[in-house]
Amino acid sequence: MRLFAAVLVFALSSSAAAQALPSWNEGAAKQGIVEFVKAVTEKGSKDFVPRAERVATFDNDGTLWAEQPLYFQFVFALDQVKAAAPKHSEWKDNAAFQALTNQDKEALAKLGHKPILELIAVGNSGMTVGEYDHTIREWLAKARHPRFKRPYTDLTYQPMKELLAYLRANGFKTYIVSGGSVEFMRPWAEKAYGIPPEQVIGSQQEVKFEMKDGKPVLTREPKFAFIDDGPGKPVGIYRSIGRRPIAAFGNSDGDLQMLQVTAAGPGRSLVLIVHHDDAEREFAYDRESHIGKLDKAWDEAKAKGWIVVSMKNDWKKIFSFEK
Amino acid sequence: MRLFAAVLVFALSSSAAAQALPSWNEGAAKQGIVEFVKAVTEKGSKDFVPRAERVATFDNDGTLWAEQPLYFQFVFALDQVKAAAPKHSEWKDNAAFQALTNQDKEALAKLGHKPILELIAVGNSGMTVGEYDHTIREWLAKARHPRFKRPYTDLTYQPMKELLAYLRANGFKTYIVSGGSVEFMRPWAEKAYGIPPEQVIGSQQEVKFEMKDGKPVLTREPKFAFIDDGPGKPVGIYRSIGRRPIAAFGNSDGDLQMLQVTAAGPGRSLVLIVHHDDAEREFAYDRESHIGKLDKAWDEAKAKGWIVVSMKNDWKKIFSFEK
Repeated sequence: MRLFAAVLVFALSSSAAAQALPSWNEGAAKQGIVEFVKAVTEKGSKDFVPRAERVATFDNDGTLWAEQPLYFQFVFALDQVKAAAPKHSEWKDNAAFQALTNQDKEALAKLGHKPILELIAVGNSGMTVGEYDHTIREWLAKARHPRFKRPYTDLTYQPMKELLAYLRANGFKTYIVSGGSVEFMRPWAEKAYGIPPEQVIGSQQEVKFEMKDGKPVLTREPKFAFIDDGPGKPVGIYRSIGRRPIAAFGNSDGDLQMLQVTAAGPGRSLVLIVHHDDAEREFAYDRESHIGKLDKAWDEAKAKGWIVVSMKNDWKKIFSFEK
Repeated sequence: MRLFAAVLVFALSSSAAAQALPSWNEGAAKQGIVEFVKAVTEKGSKDFVPRAERVATFDNDGTLWAEQPLYFQFVFALDQVKAAAPKHSEWKDNAAFQALTNQDKEALAKLGHKPILELIAVGNSGMTVGEYDHTIREWLAKARHPRFKRPYTDLTYQPMKELLAYLRANGFKTYIVSGGSVEFMRPWAEKAYGIPPEQVIGSQQEVKFEMKDGKPVLTREPKFAFIDDGPGKPVGIYRSIGRRPIAAFGNSDGDLQMLQVTAAGPGRSLVLIVHHDDAEREFAYDRESHIGKLDKAWDEAKAKGWIVVSMKNDWKKIFSFEK
């Protein structure tokens, strides 16, 4: 009788997991997720973790939504540079600005990242944080992805949204930990992922408190305060959460250190990498890509037995708009 | 019958508030708190605020626990400088270190803050964040306040702890926003205040990711990354929460900008200052104090009608250990 009850409970909870992750094909990836969640949540399990310590961190670009052919925030930030150009006559002599306006890829490659990032910082500062938030929302409402011809916020991954909901239903607190900026994600992350503004960790431009027309405002400064990428991710997690994640999800070498810290935890952990191998439904890229390069983290995943998700084989559906 | 029910509900909820804030005397301060909470939480109220937006931010030193005769973290940080001295033979020629060891107040006053803070930064760096956390916990267990002869963590204010619990019972999310460092508060804030590590905002020293004996660790660097004081407080709130508080609590000019931002919100807000006017049970200080100076913020509180709590008159009890 007790065995029958145990089998019944197992069958029911497996079916609950199947219902919770309907866009995931049966296979090692899904099985690894479900087994981990059972291990850390079931009373009496040797790997049980109290609710307050069930922290799960997710990279955003390439892990929760698409990032090709260019990080979506980069497209937005360049649009802001163009919009700000009339106020910056000095840019006429700026090589980076010239290369950008002329879409001169050769010149851009020669210049390197630094002058481009400086230009972006200047073009995306000077306004209050409220004004900038408004600009982001307006841009997101109008901009369309070059290939899918849809709003960028449609390009979130359906299986990952199910995973977020499944973890939360099991008492996890879910965070974004992105190289992108918090400002760019907060306006839509709650609706898209169920992640509230205070659980979005990301890169940050400096902001300055000041009184403007008798009202206190925060104004954006043309300088980065924090880059939440690579070795910056565990730093961002330490600063904002102060607990080590027990589950972490990424897709590129920029996530490696976050995954390493999670894997090195004292208890059981879940470490997962999304591999972009579906050129038909999305994009296929890894070791050689300039955006979302997956090389060292892939080697480490293989060596350490981390879960590597094949978007092609593990996901029934990538985007919710697919038929 | 409906009127009777309404009266009954009112009577019950008023008595619930009284029960929730037992260490508060009846008066304008308590009444202001209870009225605000009713206004933003009761369905149908014109000032109703959804649960997710009920953000309350609390300064720590002087607002949630005592801060005299020296910020407790400053005492700890100086102890770490002393402990680190054998490793820093170069400090023999350091004027700030000499003045500190000799307790030469005149020399210290002449030197100003900068060399002292630099010394503290060096003396409190070089170790992993885990090692530092351990040192803090050991120190807190042993150190005693010079006047009260008790662990520093006993010196939290009972009425404020009741207020934190009362706000949370009404759907608020409570945060610490302190000039002190997150590391120093996280080990005890959850037990003392019910505030988890991820809701502690504060000043931050730089930390660096590195591999040590094959394990990923974060090491403390001798440099401040962020000072969460004065105009830094609204910046810290913006970075970590991304929502404007609707209730904010402070006790000194270092809290002024946080209080201003809260008061400038689009809806109803609660802004409260704790005034230290009870030399007998705690300490009495305000406009002339070097620690916890309350001058500009007091003037603004009077001009704007913010609540000013008299510790002497509004609180039945200051510390839980009082009889």
